[in-house]
Amino acid sequence: MAKEITSREADYSQWYNDLIVKSSLADYSAVRGCMVIKPYGYGLWEGMRDVLDKMFKDTGHVNAYFPLFVPKSLFEAEEKNAEGFAKECAVVTHYRLKSNPDAPGKLMVDPEAKLEEELVVRPTSEAIIWNTYKGWIQSYRDLPILVNQWANVVRWEMRTRLFLRTAEFLWQEGHTAHATKEEALAETVQMLDVYAKFAEEYMAMPVIKGVKTESERFAGAEETYCIEALMQDGKALQAGTSHFLGQNFAKAFDVKFADKSNKLDYVWATSWGVSTRLIGGLVMTHSDDDGLVLPPKIAPLQVVIVPIYKGDEQKGLIDNVVHPLVTQLKDLGITVKYDDSDAARPGWKFAEYEMKGVPVRIAVGARDLEQNIVEVARRDTKEKMQVGINGLAFYVKVLLDEIQLHMFNKAKAYRDEHITPVQNWTEFQGVLETKGGFISAHWDGTAETEEKIKEATKATIRCIPVDAVEEHGVCVFSGKPSTKRVLFAKAY
Amino acid sequence: MAKEITSREADYSQWYNDLIVKSSLADYSAVRGCMVIKPYGYGLWEGMRDVLDKMFKDTGHVNAYFPLFVPKSLFEAEEKNAEGFAKECAVVTHYRLKSNPDAPGKLMVDPEAKLEEELVVRPTSEAIIWNTYKGWIQSYRDLPILVNQWANVVRWEMRTRLFLRTAEFLWQEGHTAHATKEEALAETVQMLDVYAKFAEEYMAMPVIKGVKTESERFAGAEETYCIEALMQDGKALQAGTSHFLGQNFAKAFDVKFADKSNKLDYVWATSWGVSTRLIGGLVMTHSDDDGLVLPPKIAPLQVVIVPIYKGDEQKGLIDNVVHPLVTQLKDLGITVKYDDSDAARPGWKFAEYEMKGVPVRIAVGARDLEQNIVEVARRDTKEKMQVGINGLAFYVKVLLDEIQLHMFNKAKAYRDEHITPVQNWTEFQGVLETKGGFISAHWDGTAETEEKIKEATKATIRCIPVDAVEEHGVCVFSGKPSTKRVLFAKAY
Repeated sequence: MAKEITSREADYSQWYNDLIVKSSLADYSAVRGCMVIKPYGYGLWEGMRDVLDKMFKDTGHVNAYFPLFVPKSLFEAEEKNAEGFAKECAVVTHYRLKSNPDAPGKLMVDPEAKLEEELVVRPTSEAIIWNTYKGWIQSYRDLPILVNQWANVVRWEMRTRLFLRTAEFLWQEGHTAHATKEEALAETVQMLDVYAKFAEEYMAMPVIKGVKTESERFAGAEETYCIEALMQDGKALQAGTSHFLGQNFAKAFDVKFADKSNKLDYVWATSWGVSTRLIGGLVMTHSDDDGLVLPPKIAPLQVVIVPIYKGDEQKGLIDNVVHPLVTQLKDLGITVKYDDSDAARPGWKFAEYEMKGVPVRIAVGARDLEQNIVEVARRDTKEKMQVGINGLAFYVKVLLDEIQLHMFNKAKAYRDEHITPVQNWTEFQGVLETKGGFISAHWDGTAETEEKIKEATKATIRCIPVDAVEEHGVCVFSGKPSTKRVLFAKAY
Repeated sequence: MAKEITSREADYSQWYNDLIVKSSLADYSAVRGCMVIKPYGYGLWEGMRDVLDKMFKDTGHVNAYFPLFVPKSLFEAEEKNAEGFAKECAVVTHYRLKSNPDAPGKLMVDPEAKLEEELVVRPTSEAIIWNTYKGWIQSYRDLPILVNQWANVVRWEMRTRLFLRTAEFLWQEGHTAHATKEEALAETVQMLDVYAKFAEEYMAMPVIKGVKTESERFAGAEETYCIEALMQDGKALQAGTSHFLGQNFAKAFDVKFADKSNKLDYVWATSWGVSTRLIGGLVMTHSDDDGLVLPPKIAPLQVVIVPIYKGDEQKGLIDNVVHPLVTQLKDLGITVKYDDSDAARPGWKFAEYEMKGVPVRIAVGARDLEQNIVEVARRDTKEKMQVGINGLAFYVKVLLDEIQLHMFNKAKAYRDEHITPVQNWTEFQGVLETKGGFISAHWDGTAETEEKIKEATKATIRCIPVDAVEEHGVCVFSGKPSTKRVLFAKAY
């Protein structure tokens, strides 16, 4: 039978950790806080990356690659950014090891190979990129620059969790340069929309688009837009951010351009990113106690076919049906595997593919074949259907679309049920403790109140939704006047 | 007119540097020895990566991702490997910066945030991967493991050159684990063949497959296979390596498996890699004094169309011809750009696309259109042809194939002319100084002679070709008996 994982009810956090490891998405590594992304997890990431990459290119962006290291003097140039990341930086100080005279066969850092200037392993690349853009930009004709980078970054987090928060993670970071504030703002919003579309249409993960408060803003940004998702335990997850950086980095790195009238001005900037953290969000949005539940559009494997037979003759009859079916499915653009390995029994295979979240399983039994039917099982609802072999490939194609839609609708219904408007502090506390999810509440707009609420409840302001309506109200905590509701939640 | 680059004759090395920068492949960065790969260069790498990735997957490999950092104690476990890379390691010693009390606004390494164990930024990943494989492998059923990783690595080289030798570079590294020596050896050779096929069929760069001598072997390998290419200045370039690692890493990390009879044995290993260095090889194989010459199969842009006109009316007539042509070319799978920007004159565009090595340029002039013809120019031979508009798309498709083949044949003819058999030491020195290229010579098989030849001439043994014939001879240097010729050359 299946490898055991802790149930969500028993221990949600342990369920998550078990699931990531048992479904072979990732593994712990020998390096504190760093994970190994296993082939199945990396396949998932490749699929997500390819979709996002196409969306970036369709919106006019190109990829490039900048150095892993940021010299300390560049790192500290934009002060807020430096301050924000200084506490969690891996720092390279030496460039050589040598034999340890006191321990044969062991190495030690060679004290004579100390770098003149320390190098920070990039926690984000604004500094090294804007230092580079300085050489690329002279006039308005050099703008906009619409560049994205797929890369690894390192943030020395003290408490780490597979995918959700790791010392090293994979991500993409867009870094754009513009001649006007309006164009940079439009880019910021455009990329937020790209992220929201990707999360909802591909990951089947509903998100709320909003703006961060000043205290939750990216270090060095003028405004941080975000998409916020809701996990099954009622905690929120920041799934992507898009920053309007104003002229902060242009000023820090002295990047000016001549406009059409030859007037010099600083360049306007944005940056935006999503990371392997999305995989954590995906898992916690859809999966259940039996394993992963993956949306068809990004599942590395969409359909698995398992034969059930005794002896070569039955196997031959099944092969005769399955081989053309596999071809038909592939012709429809569906990824499919015929698992006829005899190293495992069908029951074991069923549990294994359930664990891995394969959206559709087709069991082909010798007895069913006599009636020209097979058993089709959906991973999301666990429904099993007897389906005729004629037209089966097309049936599966439609089913995959239906699963994708159903997964989104289910997650959205859960999310919508868990946005609770509250009118006062008692309600706020009650909802947070008993129901969880997003709390829609008035807030007086001060960082002081935000901090006090966080201290009292661990809930933070996830965002000010972009579609928040203007209304008169009073802050749930301070009683001071407010014009908009914001969303609070406990968060990953 | 075109940006000026130094001619190959005047200064080959400067020509290369100029070309890389002026064609916008890459740029120097603020980090010693690290480069910025610009969008055009990265586009080229993406194309190469996609082809290789498919070839790896077609041979049964999957991708995964392992940590950037290697704890020192793991790094030193395989002694030869550690010794080979210790001298060029970037080492992370601290995980935090703090405000510098003596310099307001500046940061300093926080001495209280010293790591208990230093972390080496991976120069190659055998150590971290084999430490991980230990947890993945118990029995023969867990084998083979056929994993590849696309990643950045860091080797603190003292003398660096864009693409050819940089402190950080991008590469892929395959790491496979096998139950038998035979299977591991077959994998090593299979991946060498994949590299050779990629180099010759896609990069149009002829290569010699061979085996390295012991002194040129990868640190920790039992046998290193390589592909060696020849640059236009007569120097060789190691373009890819495939290592048979024996049981060295399995022993260093205690990775054993139970075979079918439950007997424990160490696992057999291979590793193989190619890097962004290939781009340097591509440039130096084909390009000329006017810029890059890219083979169609990996050129980011295969065809550019430039209109030549006066006034909107002529432009309209040209558009009417070009728009359907663009569609037809795209339908044939050809990447094409219609550059009708009015920011630059046709002559400037011609020079720019020559610099960027676009294989085919089509100039569409209003006057030519009256006769239903256009001018098609090949980048490789600089030939210009008047071609009728009817069937033009198909003509271009055939032409691209012809260019690909011609580029390979030209490079191969040059390479073949520059493999010179010599019989004695005088000939050896003469050929090396006057003609360059590969010298095919008898060698007595000792590291001592190899080292003396290197000291005397800077030439090294590039490889013992896999198809070397057995023949009696005497070493060109020592006069001792030899059974095979090996290839010497000065190399990058």
